[in-house]
Parts: sequence; C-alpha cells; structure tokens
Amino acid sequence: MDANDAFQIHLQKLPPQDEKTFETIYTLGNGHFGIRASNPLQGNNSHFNGQPGMFVNGFYDLTELSYGENYSGYAQNSQTICQLPDPRFIIFEVDGIRSDETPYNVKMVDKNLDMRTGVLMEIFDIESPTNKQFRLTLQSFASHDNSHLFVINYSVSALNFNGALTIIKQHPYINQQIQTHSEDMRAAQRQTVLDRTYLKSKLPIMMISTRKSQLALIIAQQALNDNPMQVSILDDLPSYSKTFDLTQGMAQSFSFAYAISSPHPLLKTTLSQSAFAASVQKRLADKSFKQLLDESAAKIDQFWANSDVELEGDDTMAKGIRFNLFHLYQAAGRNGLTSIPAKGLTGPGYEGHYFWDAEMFMLPFFTYTEPAIARQLLLYRYHTLPQAQHRAREMGVNSGVMFPWRTINGEESSSYYPAGTAQVHINADIAYAVDTYLRVTDDDDFLFNYGYEIIVKTARFWLAYGHWATDKAHKGKFVIDDVTGPDEYTAMVSNNYFTNRMAQNNLHIAVKYSKRLKHNHADKLAELDVTDKEIDEFKLADEGMYLPYDDDLKIKKQDDVSTTKPVWPIKETPRNQFPLLLHFHPMTIYHYQVNKQADTVMTDILFPKNQDLDQLKRDFDYYEAITVHDSSLSRSIFGILAHRLHNADEAYRYFRQTVMMDLTNSQGNTADGVHAANMGSTWLGLIYGFAGLGMENRSFNLSPELPEAWSRLRFRIWFHGRQIEMTITQTEIMVKLLSGDSLQFYLKHKPFTLTKNHLVKEFIK
Amino acid sequence: MDANDAFQIHLQKLPPQDEKTFETIYTLGNGHFGIRASNPLQGNNSHFNGQPGMFVNGFYDLTELSYGENYSGYAQNSQTICQLPDPRFIIFEVDGIRSDETPYNVKMVDKNLDMRTGVLMEIFDIESPTNKQFRLTLQSFASHDNSHLFVINYSVSALNFNGALTIIKQHPYINQQIQTHSEDMRAAQRQTVLDRTYLKSKLPIMMISTRKSQLALIIAQQALNDNPMQVSILDDLPSYSKTFDLTQGMAQSFSFAYAISSPHPLLKTTLSQSAFAASVQKRLADKSFKQLLDESAAKIDQFWANSDVELEGDDTMAKGIRFNLFHLYQAAGRNGLTSIPAKGLTGPGYEGHYFWDAEMFMLPFFTYTEPAIARQLLLYRYHTLPQAQHRAREMGVNSGVMFPWRTINGEESSSYYPAGTAQVHINADIAYAVDTYLRVTDDDDFLFNYGYEIIVKTARFWLAYGHWATDKAHKGKFVIDDVTGPDEYTAMVSNNYFTNRMAQNNLHIAVKYSKRLKHNHADKLAELDVTDKEIDEFKLADEGMYLPYDDDLKIKKQDDVSTTKPVWPIKETPRNQFPLLLHFHPMTIYHYQVNKQADTVMTDILFPKNQDLDQLKRDFDYYEAITVHDSSLSRSIFGILAHRLHNADEAYRYFRQTVMMDLTNSQGNTADGVHAANMGSTWLGLIYGFAGLGMENRSFNLSPELPEAWSRLRFRIWFHGRQIEMTITQTEIMVKLLSGDSLQFYLKHKPFTLTKNHLVKEFIK
Repeated sequence: MDANDAFQIHLQKLPPQDEKTFETIYTLGNGHFGIRASNPLQGNNSHFNGQPGMFVNGFYDLTELSYGENYSGYAQNSQTICQLPDPRFIIFEVDGIRSDETPYNVKMVDKNLDMRTGVLMEIFDIESPTNKQFRLTLQSFASHDNSHLFVINYSVSALNFNGALTIIKQHPYINQQIQTHSEDMRAAQRQTVLDRTYLKSKLPIMMISTRKSQLALIIAQQALNDNPMQVSILDDLPSYSKTFDLTQGMAQSFSFAYAISSPHPLLKTTLSQSAFAASVQKRLADKSFKQLLDESAAKIDQFWANSDVELEGDDTMAKGIRFNLFHLYQAAGRNGLTSIPAKGLTGPGYEGHYFWDAEMFMLPFFTYTEPAIARQLLLYRYHTLPQAQHRAREMGVNSGVMFPWRTINGEESSSYYPAGTAQVHINADIAYAVDTYLRVTDDDDFLFNYGYEIIVKTARFWLAYGHWATDKAHKGKFVIDDVTGPDEYTAMVSNNYFTNRMAQNNLHIAVKYSKRLKHNHADKLAELDVTDKEIDEFKLADEGMYLPYDDDLKIKKQDDVSTTKPVWPIKETPRNQFPLLLHFHPMTIYHYQVNKQADTVMTDILFPKNQDLDQLKRDFDYYEAITVHDSSLSRSIFGILAHRLHNADEAYRYFRQTVMMDLTNSQGNTADGVHAANMGSTWLGLIYGFAGLGMENRSFNLSPELPEAWSRLRFRIWFHGRQIEMTITQTEIMVKLLSGDSLQFYLKHKPFTLTKNHLVKEFIK
Repeated sequence: MDANDAFQIHLQKLPPQDEKTFETIYTLGNGHFGIRASNPLQGNNSHFNGQPGMFVNGFYDLTELSYGENYSGYAQNSQTICQLPDPRFIIFEVDGIRSDETPYNVKMVDKNLDMRTGVLMEIFDIESPTNKQFRLTLQSFASHDNSHLFVINYSVSALNFNGALTIIKQHPYINQQIQTHSEDMRAAQRQTVLDRTYLKSKLPIMMISTRKSQLALIIAQQALNDNPMQVSILDDLPSYSKTFDLTQGMAQSFSFAYAISSPHPLLKTTLSQSAFAASVQKRLADKSFKQLLDESAAKIDQFWANSDVELEGDDTMAKGIRFNLFHLYQAAGRNGLTSIPAKGLTGPGYEGHYFWDAEMFMLPFFTYTEPAIARQLLLYRYHTLPQAQHRAREMGVNSGVMFPWRTINGEESSSYYPAGTAQVHINADIAYAVDTYLRVTDDDDFLFNYGYEIIVKTARFWLAYGHWATDKAHKGKFVIDDVTGPDEYTAMVSNNYFTNRMAQNNLHIAVKYSKRLKHNHADKLAELDVTDKEIDEFKLADEGMYLPYDDDLKIKKQDDVSTTKPVWPIKETPRNQFPLLLHFHPMTIYHYQVNKQADTVMTDILFPKNQDLDQLKRDFDYYEAITVHDSSLSRSIFGILAHRLHNADEAYRYFRQTVMMDLTNSQGNTADGVHAANMGSTWLGLIYGFAGLGMENRSFNLSPELPEAWSRLRFRIWFHGRQIEMTITQTEIMVKLLSGDSLQFYLKHKPFTLTKNHLVKEFIK
C-alpha cells in the first residue's frame, strides 16, 4: 500500500488478490446503498469473473427456506438483500462491435480511493476485438450530502487510434447474475427475482420491485451538465448514447447521477414515482459532477472532523484504521429503518442481515463520534419492537420481546436455531447499546420516547425466559436455560455466562431507568404497565442472577457444563480444517471445549468495573487456549483484554490482525463483503483498548497505554453534547474541550475538570 | 368389530373413518412388500381420494434434503421408500366407456381380512356412467410361502343388466401420484421418480428403476390358470384384457399373480431380468389361485402355531392383539438385508425408515416366537456395519461404529440431528437386542459370526464418545455428553439416564461375550483386535458409568439438568395443541420439563433385576406426570411399569390404548401407515407385562398377574431351541414343553424343571 497520502487506498503494491476482493474493498456507499467496484463492462456477461452489484439498505426479497423436518415456529422465509444491477455498467462500440456482445479485453486496471473526498478513481485500459485500445477513467462517489445519489464520471481517450467510439448507457438486465454458489453457508447467496417497469417508456427512470416481499424502489439516471446527453430508445430501452470522434491524447468525458429512492411497499412506490422523477430532474439536470462532489465532500470533511483517528508511528496501521472507519461510515443506515449489515453494503454475504454485531461491535464508534447516526441505528430496533413482541409470543414467551438473531425487516430469518434464535443474548445486547448511547449522549428525548421501552421490554423477556432455580446446584439463583452465547461452537446450554451477565445488566438498567423516569415521567411507566412490583422483580432477578464459576479452575465458567468436556485438539487439527464449522458436524464440534470466538471474556470488556486482574488473567489464559478465532469478532476482544492485562505485545499482535483483515483478505472471504463488525472492533481496540476509554461515575475515564511503535494517537469524541479531543503520546495525555460546557472527567481514574481553552495534561508514566 | 370369528377383521360396524385409514389397516404384506387395500379403480386418477401403492422393503430412492444452513456432516439425501403403482388396479369398459377415463362410481365397499389364511376379501358395488351396476369381488393375499408373490382373484357379476363388460389389466403409469402433502413432518411424503422398461414389448414383465439410488426390481404379471388370458398390446402397453358377456347372478372370475423381485443395483437387475421372467412363467402359469393360497396359508398356520396369543375374557382385545401380531409378521424383512420400517410396509410415513423401534419394540416378539426372523432382522444391522463405521469417522469418533438414527440403506437419513443423529442410544439398543436374541436362542453361530462384532463395535463407540469426568459433580465417573435420549422433547443433553444405562449394558455385555469367546474362540478376538486392555477399559467404563440421580426428589434424573427446568403446563395446553412438536418451536419445548414418551423409566423394564419398588414408584409417578405420550412408543412402557407396581387398573388402561391404536385410528394418522412399534409393544405389554416373562439365571421366569376381566391367557415361546406353551389363568400357571429337551426355568422366581409330557402347574395366589 502506498503510504504517501494517509487518506488514499491504492492497493496495487499488495500481493495480487482476486478481482472480487478488490470489488469489495473499493465499494462505495453511504448507508443507503453500496455499489461494488466491478469491471464496468461486465454487466450480466458471464465471460467475466466479477460479482458486480448494488445493495440498497433494507431492500430485500423473501426467499424460501426449506428443512428436512420443518418444525413449528421455524422461519419459513429468509430475507435476502437484493443484488441490483450495477449502475457503473457501460457499453462501448468500436468498429461496429458492441462490448456487451463481444467481450472487450481489459488489459490494465488501477484503482485509488480518496477517503478524504470519497472519490474512487479507476483506470481501465481496454482493447476492442479490432485491437483499438483506449483508456477509460472512472471517477465516482456515493453522495454523503444526498444519500440517494451515486455520481459517476466516465472519461475515454484513445491510446492507439484516432476514430469513432460510441458509448451506450442502458440497463438491459434487471436480475444481476449471481456467479458464486458457495458451499460456505455464510456466503449464502440466494437469487431474488426482480421486476422492472419504466416510468415512461422514454425516460431511464425505472421502478424495481421484488416478487415476494412486494417492495419497490425507483432508480433514475440523469446525465449531468458536464457533457449533456439525450435519451433515446435503443434495443427497446431508454438509453443514453453518443459517438465520440477520438483523437489520441484528447479525453472525452461525461457524467451521470443515479438517484436511488428509498425502498417502500410496491403500491406506495408506484404512487410516488412521478414526483420522484420530477424532483430528480429538477434538482440534478443543471448540476455538474464537481458541484455534487463538493457538496458530498463537505459532509465527509465533517465526518473526519468527528471521527478521524490520527496515529503516528505506523503509517500502515494508520491508513488501515481510516479505511475501516470510512467503511463503517459508508455502511451505517441513517433513516431509522435500517441498520448495518454484517458485510456492510459491500457484498451479499450473510444475505445482508443485521446481527448483534451492529450494536456490540459497530455502534460504539458512532455513539462516541457520530451520535446522530447511532440514534438512527437504535431507532431501527425500536421500530421493529412489534415484530420482536410477536416472535416472543410465537416462541411461547408470554412477556417482553424477542429480537431476531438475523433479520432485515425485524422478523427472524435464522434457519439454524441453535446458532440463531437461541442467541437470545441479542435482547440484552440491544439494551446494553441503548444504555451506552444514553450514558454517552445524555439524550433524554431518546430515553423517554424510545430507549426506555426497548430496555423494559427486553428486561421482561428475561423474567419470562429464565426462572428461579430450586435444584441444589443453583438453589435461590435466577437461571436461564436453553440459550446459545456468542460462541457458536457451543449451543443450547444452561447459564451461558455471557448471556446471564448481559441479562443481569438488562434487568439492572431497567430498574435504573424505571427509577429515574418514575421521578418526573411516571406517565411513561404507566403507559408501559411498569409497576413497582415489576421493578422489584427486575431487581431481584438482577441481584439473584446465577453466574457460573468453576471452583477448581477458578475461572468464570462459560456455562453449566462447559469445563467438563474434553478440549478440541486444536494443534493437531490441520490448518485447512478451519473454520471448523465448514468441516465438522455441529454435534461433533459441540462435543468438545472449543470456542469459535470470545464469549465469557467479552463480559470483562463490557463490565470493566472492579475487576480483579488475577481473575482476568486466569479467564484470559483459559479461554485463549481453547479459542480458534473462526469468527472475525474474536481477536479484537482478546486484544483489548491483553491490553488490560498489560500484555502489550499480545494486544498489539491481535490489533494488527484485526486492522488489516479486509485490506489483506486475511479471512479469505472479503470477496463476499467486508467484515464490518471487525472494522468496528478496530475502533474498540484502539479506543477502549489502547486509549483505555470507559465510563466512570456518569462521565468518562481514560487509562491509555500505547504500543511502543506509536508516537502519538489523537481522536475526538462527543460526550454529553461536548466535543472533546484526546491526544496521547508515550508519556502524556492531553485533553481538550472543542465545544460545549465544562465537565468533570477522569484520567487513570483521577478526576479532572475540562473547561474551554484549557488543555488538561497528565503524565502517563 | 364383529367378534364372531377371532381371526376376522371386519370393521364396518366401527365409526366411519376415512378411506386412507382403511387402506392402511387392510394392507397385505409379507416382509418383502406391502400393498395398500385401495380402490382398485383409482390407479393414478386424481378423482379419487385414496392413496394406493405398493412398498417393497429396501426399495428406495434418494431424495434431496435441503437446509437453510447446510453444515458439514449433514445427511445430504434422504432415502425414501418408493410408492410403487398399485397392482390391484383394473380398468373396466362398459358401453364403450373406460373407467380410467370416465370415473365409475363405487357405491358400496365391504372388506374382510381373514388372518388365519391371510386372504383379504373385498366387495365393491360399482356403477358405470351408463348406470350399469356390477359387483366386483376381490380376493387377494401376499404369499408367505414365496415372498415374491402377490396373488389376486377378481370376480365380476352384473347387478342390473345383462351384457358385455370388458376388463383391462395394464399399468399405464409408473410414478404413483402422492396425494397428501402433509405439514406433518412425520408423514414426510417425498415423491421419487421412477423409470420403467418392459422386458419384451409384448410381455407384462417390467423393470422399475430409481433415478438416484440406481436400484431396480422386476414385476412380472402372470394370469393364473383359473381363467387364463392372453397378453396383447393395448394403448402401446402389454395388457391382459377380456370381454365377458355377463348374465345377472353369474359371476365371472380370473386371477393373476404378481411376481415382485428383490431390489438390486440396476445393472444386476438388468442382467437377471430374463431368468426371472422365465422362472415366473415356469412356476406360475399352471397354478391356480387356490393352489398358491394353500401354500401360503400353510405358512401362516405355522406362524400362528408359534406366535398366537389366546386371550379369553375380552374378545375385542383378543382380536386386536392378533391384528397387531399379524401386521408385525406382514412387516418384518426376512432376507437379512431389510428390517421393519416404522410404519411396516403399509404406508409412506417416516419415508419407510428403520429406527430403534425395530430392535426395541418389535424384535422381542420375533426373538421369542419366530427366532429365524429375529436373526434376519439382526443380520440387517450386521450388514450395515461398514456404513456405521464410516459415519462414526465422519462424526469425528475414532473408534467403533455409529448406527444411523433413521435409514434404509444403512446411511444416516436424519435431517434434524438433535432429534436424529444425537440419539446415539441406538447403538446400545442394537447391542441390547443382540444380547437378548443370544440369551433366548443360545445361537452360538450368530454370536461368533455376527453378534459379537456388533457388540464390540458399539461398545467401542461409547469409550470414544464418552469420557472420564474431572469436574466436581461427576469426578471419577464415566460421562456421555451431547446426546438425545428416547424423549425427543429434550435434546442434546449431558448424561441422559437412558443412554448412559444402555451404554453401560453395551459395555457390560462386550466384556461378558469377550470373556466367553476368549475361552474357545480367541481367534475371533484377535480378528477384531480386542485386547485384554480394551476389555479392561470396557469393564471400567461399565463400572464407572455415571447415572444421574436427584437427591432431593429421590428419582432417577433424566439428564444432568432435567429436573431444574419448569414443568410444561400440560393441563392448561388445549388438546388441539398436541402433539406439541407440531405446534411449538423445538426450543420452546426443550425449555420445559415435558416428555414426549417414556425415557428414563424404560430402563426399569429393560433391566428389571434387583429393583426397589419404592424407587420404581417414585420414578413412575414423577415421569408419568410430565409425559404427554405424543409418541406411540410411550403408553406401553408405562403400562408394563404400572403392572410391575401392581397397579392393575392403570396397567390395563394403558394396555387397551395401545392394542386398539390403529384399529380405532386413535392417533389420527393411521392413514400414513400402522404404528408398527406400538404393535410390537402390545406383545411386550402382554408378555413382559401381564405374563411377567423375563430372563433369570440363563433361563426365563414368569411372574404373571392377569387383569380381572381375563379368564385365560395362552402363548408359546421358543427358548434355547425348545418350544414352550404357557397357560395363565387368574389362579394358576401351566407350563408345557412342546418340543426339545428338558430345562430349568422359574415361576415367580422359584426354579422348576420342565420335561416333555409333564405339565408344570403352580398357583398364582
């Protein structure tokens, strides 16, 4: 990777990777959509190996799930994000030969992503079957000013000839061909079937609709005023086309904007079609590529002003971190009706589903640096409370809600419940994220109107799903049976430590906010039927929660029986047998102590208060030895914990593995999409880990310790409406209030007061 | 039901049931095939509601299994028994109208099964679209003398006209239409696709082959000499046809034999086709219906001489028992390559798979009364040892074998492993059945050549799958994690009592037979690599086996955590919500203490020695209260146990429910096939229960106690090569040696010696 500009991603010096990996890495998005950086000549032509496509957040079809034995309550449909046709697609015609009919040869590709402006610049040297060579330069961006816009500038120049070249922009297909049918169930590419209608037969404004979910969106293509073009009908399709008379060395360029509407039910979309089209034309026809870019880049500037992490001493890491943060920004839904898919909007992996990752691995970054986005992500969960309540009833749980393990529309889409629906900890994860958001932002409006309801209804689930034990081993304790924790290599157990600890917190914060609101908003409690009796029940279950502990090993026990099983022979297992879930029957895996990812130890990070370091060390050592990190969510957690144990080398080693995961395709499946949660955990590793940021007494604390290689780390957070900048070196911490009123905070647990224009400075060593 | 002849099944006086239930009840079979007693006019005509078809034991196709998430080691194909075309099918033509083109009306049906001869007599009063009425009388049987033969006599007589009636016997379709696509995963009707070729175009000798499993069988149709017919080509098909000039009151009759070959790989079948056809013609052409019937009936006489149960005092029960035993006889494979499907050969339910039912519920009847059949059934398992060994390796078990939970060809066909593959107790069940067979028959040849290998290889599985515990709760004990017991409403647990107890027995008998063979057949041990060290390991694991016990409740605990869960609100659950598995998500069911069927208490029946009645009573009461009997394998076990607890009323109540299950369609799904295992458990209830038959000191013991309503119970067993008849009244037991040398045996645990011509008599009370 070139390091000459800290905001450029220019990968050509890295080892060669396959085309689809590059397509993922250079995907452009803005939370509303993501467009893979594929070969613009590919379209639906099976001569090419790429996997082009556009993903619109929340735009899915239902695809059938089938089971050998189809039990009651099983999800009958999966929601699958639609792989829409690639708007980058373009057709060339030289010497009467069209590139969509006879494949042209792409001889050279170069790509550079400028994360400062969000512009992706690509160069393709192309040869026609008649040996005419020309260079296509693409500049494109997903607008962060108007999230409906994708803007692209094409520039062509002849390399070895003078003469005519015709370009045609039309979209002859609607169902983007899915090329990879992987055996890997995590890739899970299901083909959805789309229909298309043109608003008027002569305008390239089309409505795309799904067959089963009956959703639709509108895509309008508008030539910009850089080099305007007229629409005509070609091959029965509204098309932009133009013939250029090329002279070597003289580039010809032209730009388009794609306006991509929000998805809505088919009927609603049909009714709003004309208005959308009119607005697009009105707002875009007179605009140039440059104007739209300036508007978008200004927003990205703001993003970096809030969210950038400056790291001195390791340029590669520094760029890697920025890449991850930029992708998170590109992936996060902003409209309160969408969240962040496991692969962002960069690929079809995991069918575009939202998991716990969104709240536990990605949300903290937004909560601290872009709280407005964090709020929208939590609103998505709020808006799916009705589905979660229905699901709880369907599962025989008579109170509270049960959020789905994987979903787009709020309904459970998991087809293997032991590693899906059984991960009921997602309820508590969402509640934890709400609490963190509230503590960091002090957003009382959110608490009152949305957050409290989520917290109460998830807390109720635990009262209904768990119970007070009467057996000898657990007598008098509140226990929770038949759950699966984050570690999916252990399933359907009693008293998963992580789940119980998270449930305990869920109950605890339900009491906390109930008491707070009772004071001045008793009406809210009444509205949700929260009684003193129920608050007492929350409190008792919180206090009585059973947390398994192995007295012999003196470690937190993952579940009631975890430590009794034999340990999987990890060292004896050949490397090509990992990830285990692709090579062994689940029952075989469950039969051993082996962790896919951090489970019990994750609670040490989520609840850092009053920790005994010896205990932490024992837990860390025990679980590290049986963890194979087959999930991309694992290493960052161990890294943060290593840091807390002052094992700087190990912390840094873990950190480096997480930062570069997608840029080096270290998991081998970046082609299916980026590992968005891992990207979020990069920030966690940096800020919760090395900077040691955490909550303390209604404010925050920093306990930093940088890896030796780093000379300086600087980042900003928003806290209680104030923007604060932290600068950490090997020896010092400097904290500056950039906006807002003074507040108290902590450095290494010592209280300080931060006031405007006064730098708080403290020595580390 | 008419009680005028104890061997006739004539159901017309029972409440009306649906047609498909009758088809099941009156199915004829002989272990090689079963043919449903459908309307012979139906064929593949969708105007009719029936579900005709023929099932050939072991003739299956592979049908695709699909999973939302397809994990490694999952069964990729199910084996599905083929629903072959109905050989009873016949076409009539009156006034130029063919009954297969324009449906004829069936105005009256009457059926009678004579279990003494095996003949099913059916009367159909039929009306043509031109209002010509005629009576069709069918007499048919599945030969028990030559299991390849199905023989049928058609007799027609005009009821309201004199004139011409043409009959056509041809088989215009090959893929029997499957009419019921049930939501009930137990019915699981998957359509297989069959191909057909005729040996010579002019003979009705066809080879039917499957697409994916590439199996084939030959069906030859031969007119018998009662009223011989010539074959001609009609509708491009070899057909028998004849026009009768009917006169009212004068019946015209004609007979056919169907010779149904064994299924073999396609190539082998193709090569043997001509020879099979020649042999059929040679052996059948000169035979009459009566001759073939006499040969078959003689074999059934022998069956009843061995297996009949005479019950005086309750004619309905007496007939019900005979019906069950007759169906068991009809269902059991005889060729060492097949076993007994869960639904016998009477319907497509459970896809024709063999489960543990065969060994645990049906085999004892054969072991004691038809040991030659029992041997063949066990040989089936022996012949699938290679598949079971392969499966063990695939599941990461490095020693021993792992029999499939459900299968036809020996490969796992279960698509929901928590209630399938995880039921590893099937290994020990098979070993238990082998041991019982050996103890009852003293068949040393079987021990040496087959049985010992099964016992050793299943015992090895336990050593590999279980382990010696180191945790506090189980320290020093041999434990077995991640199994599912017989109760499928609890899955994937540690130390299921039933499984551990059965595994213990498996290890115990491995030691027992190893020691016995070491004496005079040390070569056998060497052949199987059985060392003294391994025998010691078996012994230690047997002696150290952990058997969970609840010290508070003082009951045998179903598994490590069973008693800690809340009890399912059985009484509050509406009747239409049973069986629970069709109405609740598995995870919801697992979250409660609720048993589908007898689990822990079943061990009390399998290991009756040295039992403490107080303990038995506590176990019985506890588990009866949480058992919903959603499995047909449950009530019989509770009944036997109730009898052992001298709770005569309850024992009799359970017994009555099991005896009449199919004749009254009490489970509501007899249409899919009979409940063969329940039929077997009828015999268990009677003989293990009321007669109190059990093993004692290498011989047997009887501890009988009859329900008050019964005046006399008589039955016969084969024991160590001797046939013995037992007669039990309310006051006396009489035991008679019918053949063989004298032997010692026990009555109420008191030793007696049985010699020829000397009746042993003992008072009960």
